[in-house]
Amino acid sequence: MILLTRRATFSASHYYWNPAWSAEQNEAVFGRCSNRNGHGHNYTLEITVTGAVDRVTGFVVDLKWLKDVIEREVISVYDHRHLNLEVPEFAHSIPTTENIAVAVWNRLEAPVTAAGSAMLNRVRVYETDDIFAEYRGEHGEAA
Amino acid sequence: MILLTRRATFSASHYYWNPAWSAEQNEAVFGRCSNRNGHGHNYTLEITVTGAVDRVTGFVVDLKWLKDVIEREVISVYDHRHLNLEVPEFAHSIPTTENIAVAVWNRLEAPVTAAGSAMLNRVRVYETDDIFAEYRGEHGEAA
Amino acid sequence: MILLTRRATFSASHYYWNPAWSAEQNEAVFGRCSNRNGHGHNYTLEITVTGAVDRVTGFVVDLKWLKDVIEREVISVYDHRHLNLEVPEFAHSIPTTENIAVAVWNRLEAPVTAAGSAMLNRVRVYETDDIFAEYRGEHGEAA
Amino acid sequence: MILLTRRATFSASHYYWNPAWSAEQNEAVFGRCSNRNGHGHNYTLEITVTGAVDRVTGFVVDLKWLKDVIEREVISVYDHRHLNLEVPEFAHSIPTTENIAVAVWNRLEAPVTAAGSAMLNRVRVYETDDIFAEYRGEHGEAA
Amino acid sequence: MILLTRRATFSASHYYWNPAWSAEQNEAVFGRCSNRNGHGHNYTLEITVTGAVDRVTGFVVDLKWLKDVIEREVISVYDHRHLNLEVPEFAHSIPTTENIAVAVWNRLEAPVTAAGSAMLNRVRVYETDDIFAEYRGEHGEAA
Amino acid sequence: MILLTRRATFSASHYYWNPAWSAEQNEAVFGRCSNRNGHGHNYTLEITVTGAVDRVTGFVVDLKWLKDVIEREVISVYDHRHLNLEVPEFAHSIPTTENIAVAVWNRLEAPVTAAGSAMLNRVRVYETDDIFAEYRGEHGEAA
Repeated sequence: MILLTRRATFSASHYYWNPAWSAEQNEAVFGRCSNRNGHGHNYTLEITVTGAVDRVTGFVVDLKWLKDVIEREVISVYDHRHLNLEVPEFAHSIPTTENIAVAVWNRLEAPVTAAGSAMLNRVRVYETDDIFAEYRGEHGEAA
Repeated sequence: MILLTRRATFSASHYYWNPAWSAEQNEAVFGRCSNRNGHGHNYTLEITVTGAVDRVTGFVVDLKWLKDVIEREVISVYDHRHLNLEVPEFAHSIPTTENIAVAVWNRLEAPVTAAGSAMLNRVRVYETDDIFAEYRGEHGEAA
Repeated sequence: MILLTRRATFSASHYYWNPAWSAEQNEAVFGRCSNRNGHGHNYTLEITVTGAVDRVTGFVVDLKWLKDVIEREVISVYDHRHLNLEVPEFAHSIPTTENIAVAVWNRLEAPVTAAGSAMLNRVRVYETDDIFAEYRGEHGEAA
Repeated sequence: MILLTRRATFSASHYYWNPAWSAEQNEAVFGRCSNRNGHGHNYTLEITVTGAVDRVTGFVVDLKWLKDVIEREVISVYDHRHLNLEVPEFAHSIPTTENIAVAVWNRLEAPVTAAGSAMLNRVRVYETDDIFAEYRGEHGEAA
Repeated sequence: MILLTRRATFSASHYYWNPAWSAEQNEAVFGRCSNRNGHGHNYTLEITVTGAVDRVTGFVVDLKWLKDVIEREVISVYDHRHLNLEVPEFAHSIPTTENIAVAVWNRLEAPVTAAGSAMLNRVRVYETDDIFAEYRGEHGEAA
Repeated sequence: MILLTRRATFSASHYYWNPAWSAEQNEAVFGRCSNRNGHGHNYTLEITVTGAVDRVTGFVVDLKWLKDVIEREVISVYDHRHLNLEVPEFAHSIPTTENIAVAVWNRLEAPVTAAGSAMLNRVRVYETDDIFAEYRGEHGEAA
């Protein structure tokens, strides 16, 4: 089994805000991230699939196909968007790095599995060079 | 003469929009950047000063001082902000990478010059790893 | 379960020296690293915690809190220090990248666990861009 | 147990070509990679070994020794070479990133194991900054 | 005046060979680079233009336009190609990093100038992270 | 004229200390850098030469030769050393990033000039990713 990873990037706005709280509570918990005008990041994704190497092609999956899946399912929806205001899964869920990792997994798991040759193994999301979250699915090991 | 550079980073939202134009014109010229919900970036600044090395300290300027000046004059104003909505110089000027470079220069030139030991030489702004603008002041050579 | 990682950096000196050996033996085993005047590195830490996402905040842990823990427990003790001469755990243990990884784990495990929402999962230490060590605790899987 | 990783780089040419197929089939599956004149990359390897820390040296393995093994077994054979034409394992196997990861594992496993202090744990191969494959051996867990 | 830079990448093969020399002479001067099977690199370009900021758009040039020019004039010709065998300017000129910088300048100068709003200022070519060449045109200052 | 640059790295210790001052003055001016036990960095050099491209070789200079010159004149003297205690030019000059840039220039200018085909143009020294100094010689333009 081989782990094969492709990076992709998108630029988006977000803010951290819990509508059940007062502005003071949001400011106390989320600090500058609670600014309702939003702020943004260049996000980097690392999408990892796992499978056997096809003896004829030498591929686990065709990386051009994987790039297209990531583009269609994630980048075209997230890039140059305000995550809270324009992406459905963040209408009622705060777009933290952790939640973005889960959301990207949920968008990619079915199309990767459907293709038949590999399984989605890991989604890593960098919010900055210094912060990243990783999700391996409900049945993934924690490490 | 030595060129001494310090990097700093901030995360902010922006959009490209000319209020004299229709939505169609803005979309035609600015593409996805014209989305009024905004999108964002992790910006990296490279602030370069030039001066002689002080024989006693070995410094052109104290880099701790330079860090504090950049923090006070730029980062505290731009970081986790929506540049169009919250930063005065972008109320009537589109916060493109080019205009941000000029704006950062304008914020830093006086305090660096006032300190007396060095001149502001160059401001470089990275919007992403693949795009950056550089400004050397009105009297700076183009290259 | 999500893995959440924060990077931090420190600059320090060290040398490799086994006091039970002659200078020739130290030189033979440790090469240039045995120079008793010391040499140094910009170290990069990647500190990974694992836990469930809090539904109210969207956080595994507050990254500002994690940054403060790393700063208080590790960076304030290691940064701009000579590891062999000034950091207690290296008085009788050579500050190799491997041993630094274990030492950072030992400094962080209790305060992370005590906070209650996440477990320390992994400590990675880069000595240079080309060399890094990773420790996952006594009960951590080797891979 | 500690995971210890060393990076190494090489520059090489390759192409993707299945001799059982027509030129059209190769072009359809492999696109621009099927150009028989070849194209090339700066490859980066991350070679990870795992073992206990030796109490006397503080080492899992001597990184100088590991560097020499990687140089002798892999870099001296792959660097500045055309992988398809000059490296034996790619005479009948397409040098995709996946296959290179397996081939590097096969070259390193025996000499690392023979040294007695550590096991080869993981081979990661970056073809570009955006694409990498990882192999953990036949008995390695998929993740 | 602002300097605005866009990065682009391509992967290609090349070799260093002077047909007026014997194989021994080529080997003596060019070392491993004289291998006629070729080897390759991931090249990174930094293309810098200079001009005034348009007050209406905030642009020196439209970066989407600049990306398309680089793609059409350079990347579509160089990427996934063997530079010596498939790119006309290297039929009689060795594709060293220096010569690639000049060739890329020659390909871009006319289309950038023709657009009317900016001048080509600088072409930087990275062959690896550790080696790069820069050309500023026949009339460009050496530094 | 082409600018050709080669990177090199070294790891070293240093401290900032003016022997004409009291410990309190050194601490006040240099902060944590005044720790006499020393601390260290992974330094990165960018050495730039300028010259015409040789029509026969396509080289400004042979990069293997340039690498050897940098190794012999700088790296072999600075790497794994304590700059204050073991490098002659820092016996009476504080090894700040600025002073290191000048010292590296002084070590390289004569051997590069003597080779006859290129001039030393620029020395850039990174102390960390966020701090770098650049020197272009006594007659170099400030920018």
